[in-house]
Amino acid sequence: MPAEADVRHDARRQEVLAVAAALYAEQGYRATSMRDLAARVGLSKPALYHYVTSKEEVLTELYANLLLDNTAAVAQITADHARPLDALRAVIVQRVAYTCTNQALLTVCFQEEHHLPPRAKERVLEARRTYDEAVLAIVEEAVAEGSLVLRVAPRIYVNAILGAANWTYKWFDVDGSLTPAALGEQIAAALLDTGAVG
Amino acid sequence: MPAEADVRHDARRQEVLAVAAALYAEQGYRATSMRDLAARVGLSKPALYHYVTSKEEVLTELYANLLLDNTAAVAQITADHARPLDALRAVIVQRVAYTCTNQALLTVCFQEEHHLPPRAKERVLEARRTYDEAVLAIVEEAVAEGSLVLRVAPRIYVNAILGAANWTYKWFDVDGSLTPAALGEQIAAALLDTGAVG
Repeated sequence: MPAEADVRHDARRQEVLAVAAALYAEQGYRATSMRDLAARVGLSKPALYHYVTSKEEVLTELYANLLLDNTAAVAQITADHARPLDALRAVIVQRVAYTCTNQALLTVCFQEEHHLPPRAKERVLEARRTYDEAVLAIVEEAVAEGSLVLRVAPRIYVNAILGAANWTYKWFDVDGSLTPAALGEQIAAALLDTGAVG
Repeated sequence: MPAEADVRHDARRQEVLAVAAALYAEQGYRATSMRDLAARVGLSKPALYHYVTSKEEVLTELYANLLLDNTAAVAQITADHARPLDALRAVIVQRVAYTCTNQALLTVCFQEEHHLPPRAKERVLEARRTYDEAVLAIVEEAVAEGSLVLRVAPRIYVNAILGAANWTYKWFDVDGSLTPAALGEQIAAALLDTGAVG
């Protein structure tokens, strides 16, 4: 296949994924068939299978891609902040803001991941591991320079703060008074600026 | 219906719910039919409908009941601890331990709740609200007596810590080195004993 056809194929595939994300957000993952997806993209069902082979593959790609986006965001944050504690705060804000901005898609990802076939699960897990390692590196730097004092293993701490951040997908109120970024600032403050005294 | 029959009916219904919880944990919620449930309980399918009317009703009851159990645990913890900060720590430990001990059932609850019919959702939401209010009361007491210094609204803080606790359903490793209670202690320490310096 010539390179130009490759590029066209990739661009079309990306379009299919973007349309799928919108459809899943709109009407739910379970209620969306490959036929619905084909119709929305303007392809016949057989033509659609030229780009993606199953609903599970579509979800896996969407999920892995969003984890990669978040990992890229962490790398940018690390580059932008000299102090690891500032970077950690920015990571929490970014993660919450991303989760709340993409609430419907994240809801699908978090709910359906257990049902993915093993190879797809492995792909998502791999992308998540890369993300987690990037956050862990920041936490370890903050601990090493003494700006973060932990009484637990850094890995447990990372899981705890990411849990608090991710859980916003359940309760962020798009009609509420806080924007995704403002809620991110609040969660970061709840995690980093809370002092238990005595 | 005489009272004795009521009691028998209630006991049988509780048995049906307990068996359903075990089945959902074993083979998943989506893969479990009312026929499977009837067979496991040793009832005909029509007889089963005498106790529960649908899968959604079964899940709603299980979910609401576990939230009520957790609310009762919070009340007991409040009674057992003179200092609100100690109570808050115990609440986090209990919540994580409960989540990890009932990981399979909680996974079903957290994943399926969005798909419940509106009245069922309302019942779960009501039970969760009662739980959240009980935790909020402890946080507000700790703030009032000065043992917890918050830079965010207590409600946001409660959502953040419960998010960190609930998220353990995704990553608690039953074959790992930490028991559910030990992980609870670690999460409580991650949330309450972490100091950001400067």
